[in-house]
Amino acid sequence: MATATVDPLDPVFALHRGGKLAVAATVPLTSREDLSRAYTPGVARVCAAIAADPTLADEYTWAGNAVAVVTDGTAVLGLGDIGPRAALPVMEGKAILFKQFAGVDAVPICLDTTDVDEIVATVTALAPSFGGINLEDIAAPRCFEIERRLDAALDIPVFHDDQHGTAIVVYAALRSAAAVLSRKLPDLRVVISGAGAAGTAVARMLLAGGVEAATLTLVDSRGILHADRPGLVGVKRELATLTNAERRRGPIGEALRGADVLIGVSGGRIDAAALAGMAPGGVIFALANPEPEVHPDVAARHAAVVATGRSDYPNQINNVLAFPGVFAGALRARATRITEGMKLAAAEAIAGVIAGAATSDAIVPSPLDPRVAPAVADAVARAARDEGVVRDPVAAGCGSG
Amino acid sequence: MATATVDPLDPVFALHRGGKLAVAATVPLTSREDLSRAYTPGVARVCAAIAADPTLADEYTWAGNAVAVVTDGTAVLGLGDIGPRAALPVMEGKAILFKQFAGVDAVPICLDTTDVDEIVATVTALAPSFGGINLEDIAAPRCFEIERRLDAALDIPVFHDDQHGTAIVVYAALRSAAAVLSRKLPDLRVVISGAGAAGTAVARMLLAGGVEAATLTLVDSRGILHADRPGLVGVKRELATLTNAERRRGPIGEALRGADVLIGVSGGRIDAAALAGMAPGGVIFALANPEPEVHPDVAARHAAVVATGRSDYPNQINNVLAFPGVFAGALRARATRITEGMKLAAAEAIAGVIAGAATSDAIVPSPLDPRVAPAVADAVARAARDEGVVRDPVAAGCGSG
Repeated sequence: MATATVDPLDPVFALHRGGKLAVAATVPLTSREDLSRAYTPGVARVCAAIAADPTLADEYTWAGNAVAVVTDGTAVLGLGDIGPRAALPVMEGKAILFKQFAGVDAVPICLDTTDVDEIVATVTALAPSFGGINLEDIAAPRCFEIERRLDAALDIPVFHDDQHGTAIVVYAALRSAAAVLSRKLPDLRVVISGAGAAGTAVARMLLAGGVEAATLTLVDSRGILHADRPGLVGVKRELATLTNAERRRGPIGEALRGADVLIGVSGGRIDAAALAGMAPGGVIFALANPEPEVHPDVAARHAAVVATGRSDYPNQINNVLAFPGVFAGALRARATRITEGMKLAAAEAIAGVIAGAATSDAIVPSPLDPRVAPAVADAVARAARDEGVVRDPVAAGCGSG
Repeated sequence: MATATVDPLDPVFALHRGGKLAVAATVPLTSREDLSRAYTPGVARVCAAIAADPTLADEYTWAGNAVAVVTDGTAVLGLGDIGPRAALPVMEGKAILFKQFAGVDAVPICLDTTDVDEIVATVTALAPSFGGINLEDIAAPRCFEIERRLDAALDIPVFHDDQHGTAIVVYAALRSAAAVLSRKLPDLRVVISGAGAAGTAVARMLLAGGVEAATLTLVDSRGILHADRPGLVGVKRELATLTNAERRRGPIGEALRGADVLIGVSGGRIDAAALAGMAPGGVIFALANPEPEVHPDVAARHAAVVATGRSDYPNQINNVLAFPGVFAGALRARATRITEGMKLAAAEAIAGVIAGAATSDAIVPSPLDPRVAPAVADAVARAARDEGVVRDPVAAGCGSG
């Protein structure tokens, strides 16, 4: 039954046997009375109450704490389009991280379709079962339309982690790095390598957080994005027009001339020679996984602060710092969506956890730091209430701060 | 925030606060090494293996033990069409019963659509996340088409519990009652009150199990089903033609003249006067919930064996005797569907658990009897292997019996 691709000596396969996730009852089920309360006939009274007032589902079902982790399996890790079944181990991993760090009950939903209309229809149909939708590993540009349409259709939070989770942790790390270097965000020339789901979301978040559009530059596989570049559409067109006031063009080395910050979210490699033109004492985040765009040892020759997605080097920037707390806070506040303000609040909370103790080798907390998710959840819930994007202002505690 | 329909003194509401279900990790997540095995980068190796051989998902994801409990909320308990949110407490209850009795990980999926095409498309799309689909509380006649189309589309078991779960437990109980009364199934005149999802499935199961078509009669809200009755379509038409060889017609009292067995799965009340014509020493199952078609005290005046769905009288016939073990066995065998033979095997296993000890007040095991689900699972897995309806004959242990 084993195939050549399963290594029986690899502890990762042993760990994954039977999957990584289970459900559990949170109520007793050992007596007839238990059965009559948790199931028929007692449960009918709870059903009738929710039928009369559907907002009671937040309180009397697990949906108030449950998130669907939805993928079509088209952009999984560095593996690309591997399909829904092969994506399931990643979604299970995501689900157990949700539980471990924020107590959120997450369920992997891997879809056997890559059609935008079908994905939107499917997620819309199953939404009453959940309090939030975490979109995951869906290829660009479809991911943008799917998120936009679901966000408009549903009154629960929809969050594409590859965009916004990445943007939150990158912004948190950059705030912290700037503080360590005694620099201000508006003074930093920033280059983002990668203009897909992650790169464009990072760009928007940095602009919202204080980076100047004039000195921000995005680079994709064809080179620098600039206002005159032909063939750009959608969000790339928008960002090309907004950023890069000098209208630099050409390869990434041109963008990096005098740059203080390089953020790699591309998956491609960046030649060390291109880094030589960076301003001294800057920042390099090389976040491609498992192979960073620039090896951290090389990056350290060109920057004062270096971060990657790797656990075997300092400054591991991982989305797990964001998504568990973001959803925990949004669920607690009964948020109807996740706004730019809630994302900024999440990033500030992540940076805040380490603020007093940050050094160039510790700009973000460890992914295992148990303080992070509660701090993020509090900040996100507060921002949701302050903005009033909640289903039930009374239940969400609006005004109580 | 409370409404008039929530009684704060009702322990059922207290029990349901926060829901009844949670997810849990089955692997450790406390060290960086744990993270690197359960999540990136280690998980990529498992994903790649499944991408190369999708059948490995049965073994290396939770889908091999996971069932979606799917409803559109249109036929929930005795409450009818209460919608997906209000149906969720029942589906959560079902999910925890799956776990408690058979260790199956079940997830409630409540759909915000009642359109057959949309339900089929949605369940087809999310199927890769699960090893089986339990349809629940979907109104007839849509439930028939939905089940038929999903069964044809998917290579995992699809099982409409209101039909087949009910049929299995009724057949098990009738076998056992016949044994207690020293009667043979082919000699019994059987009347089924109700010709919806449950009644038609019970009829088919009893026919497969040995009840004679000639002496089986179905009755719906308009009276007896007979071959000449106009306006019948679909499964009712089929069964009207097949059964009731005497072509009796009229109200239920006509069907019950000389009948040995009355099986009520209608929800409607049956007048005590109609029972007077039954043959002495027979059987009455009045299974409507929470109010049986005939009160058990009344039924006892007309029959030697009486059963209901109620936990406060003897002989509680509850689907929980069937569905956990049916899915556990089907999942273990990697069954591609649930056949008539697997359902018969399940019923025989339920009756078998109590065979030596059955009395007129104990024709079925208690819903809490821990011996039932394992016995059912073994029988169902064996039947699946014997019939060869399994995805991977080697992994399923075909031939090992």
